[in-house]
Amino acid sequence: MMAQKEETEKPALKVLITGSAGQIAYSLIPIVARGDVFGHDQPIILHLLDIPPMKTVLDGVVMEIQDCAFQLLRGIHAFVEEGPAFQDIDAAFLVGSMPRKEGMERKDLLAANVKIFKSQGQALANFAKPTVKVLVVGNPANTNAMIAAKYAAPKIPATSFSAMTRLDQNRTAGLISREKGLSDASEVKRVIIWGNHSSTQFPDVSNVTYKGEKLPFTAHDPEMISLIQKRGAAVIAARKLSSAMSAAKAAADHMHDLHHGSYDIVSMGVVSEGQYGVPAGLFFSFPVQICPHVKKWKIDESFQLDDFAKERIAITTKELMEERDDALKACEV
Amino acid sequence: MMAQKEETEKPALKVLITGSAGQIAYSLIPIVARGDVFGHDQPIILHLLDIPPMKTVLDGVVMEIQDCAFQLLRGIHAFVEEGPAFQDIDAAFLVGSMPRKEGMERKDLLAANVKIFKSQGQALANFAKPTVKVLVVGNPANTNAMIAAKYAAPKIPATSFSAMTRLDQNRTAGLISREKGLSDASEVKRVIIWGNHSSTQFPDVSNVTYKGEKLPFTAHDPEMISLIQKRGAAVIAARKLSSAMSAAKAAADHMHDLHHGSYDIVSMGVVSEGQYGVPAGLFFSFPVQICPHVKKWKIDESFQLDDFAKERIAITTKELMEERDDALKACEV
Repeated sequence: MMAQKEETEKPALKVLITGSAGQIAYSLIPIVARGDVFGHDQPIILHLLDIPPMKTVLDGVVMEIQDCAFQLLRGIHAFVEEGPAFQDIDAAFLVGSMPRKEGMERKDLLAANVKIFKSQGQALANFAKPTVKVLVVGNPANTNAMIAAKYAAPKIPATSFSAMTRLDQNRTAGLISREKGLSDASEVKRVIIWGNHSSTQFPDVSNVTYKGEKLPFTAHDPEMISLIQKRGAAVIAARKLSSAMSAAKAAADHMHDLHHGSYDIVSMGVVSEGQYGVPAGLFFSFPVQICPHVKKWKIDESFQLDDFAKERIAITTKELMEERDDALKACEV
Repeated sequence: MMAQKEETEKPALKVLITGSAGQIAYSLIPIVARGDVFGHDQPIILHLLDIPPMKTVLDGVVMEIQDCAFQLLRGIHAFVEEGPAFQDIDAAFLVGSMPRKEGMERKDLLAANVKIFKSQGQALANFAKPTVKVLVVGNPANTNAMIAAKYAAPKIPATSFSAMTRLDQNRTAGLISREKGLSDASEVKRVIIWGNHSSTQFPDVSNVTYKGEKLPFTAHDPEMISLIQKRGAAVIAARKLSSAMSAAKAAADHMHDLHHGSYDIVSMGVVSEGQYGVPAGLFFSFPVQICPHVKKWKIDESFQLDDFAKERIAITTKELMEERDDALKACEV
């Protein structure tokens, strides 16, 4: 009986989470280990990476994961070096990034993150499976994804990378459900987050449906847009800590949909090929569908943009182009 | 289609979590809200309670739960008063308790917690559904459960209360899986935690099975016992924070088994009727099974105790009797 159970088990997926000693990872790890991302019959081997000063904390996190006795977990490996952390991985949550410190210039922050994601892009090319799927959570997520993809090429296609805007999507769905008195926020669909995961993002509620039916409001609402753009800061003001539970939930939702596919329209920062007039090569949050058969995302190009939307999209596009230019300059240093 | 979906939905369960602004609750809330405790077709209304100084943080937690857009969540209510928090609840995780502060005497700590759990026992009697199931996580968990049960009587039977020793059970299962090179810690079964959820607990590995087969070691191992007793302190030393992820996982496992039943032997602190020589009325961790038909736990009385086990059980019984006597004295104040 023992042997039979072992034989019929799927091969374990190797899943990397960076910034593993941090708060988002602390909320994300148990969702992955429970099987809520890759499936309840899918064994998992966790690769946890953080920087050397966090080694002791990371060891404590490993102890707690051991103490959970998760059914699907077949291994837990903690690393402070990229090589072994990226070895043979099937999926990566790139959560760790350089946070903004007081007095830090935007360009300095960008340069610090370029260094991290350049190195991780190279590690992906050198060590990961060529089929690896990479979700960038660490900010500035879109541009970090672009840099990682640049240095992972040509071994790993840019389409294997995506940046997280699902948190903004979920926030918007929650807000609409409260404003409209809808009982199930997860049934608020076709929210589109356009552009950068930053304060220039454009949360577009003009196509929103609830339980398959178009909601009777289609106008853009600058106040709602502003609430979503500032939601992260509002959480920090209340909790005194940045969003972790909700960021982890969004990261899990995003990777779940990449892995299993989804006929829903969801928002992801993915590489543009010029859709909706966004310059090719930018990592831009678009409405995508992920075919459940081939498990590849595709930008849905059927949405109509009015002047308000075009204007908002132009603003966030401009910011992403500036980030791109600064990041590419920082690459040369 | 909308109406149909609403009509066929189960009535929502009202689930109270105390200490909701704290770290264990932060890890527990998403497990409950995902449906991993009460079932993936069971809508949930969360009642979150904390003390008034934590109100702003609690509001931040509510914001994050909203931002998760959980599919099963039908309401989130934050409270700093017991009455409305306990109103009509079906299940309670009593996580919040007075933590030990530097220089605090054991008796003072006990008295502070008696006050909390006396009040919560009264609130259970006054406001909760008579069928409520109550899991006490806040320490000293066994004695807190005893006090809450005392003040909830006769409306709510003492058998509706249990104290958490599942974390110790899961820790032991994890430790055995690592020591023996077993790939699935969740298949390490028949670990028994006897007695108090404290350093006097007796983790008994003499009956352990793996995938249904008896493991070829039956001797008690004082070194392993000591490792389990000190595991919480070891996690704090590494993480600089006490166990939250693993405590939440254990609380979820415990309530899951109470709600769905389980033919496995699991450990819970429940009211003794004299089994294994433990004085009646003590809340003592025993091996229990929970019949999946009637969803009631029953102490398994079939285990044989050798002299080593009897001696360890006597130590933890003595501690629990002292805690009981001190707690009952504090009740009179």
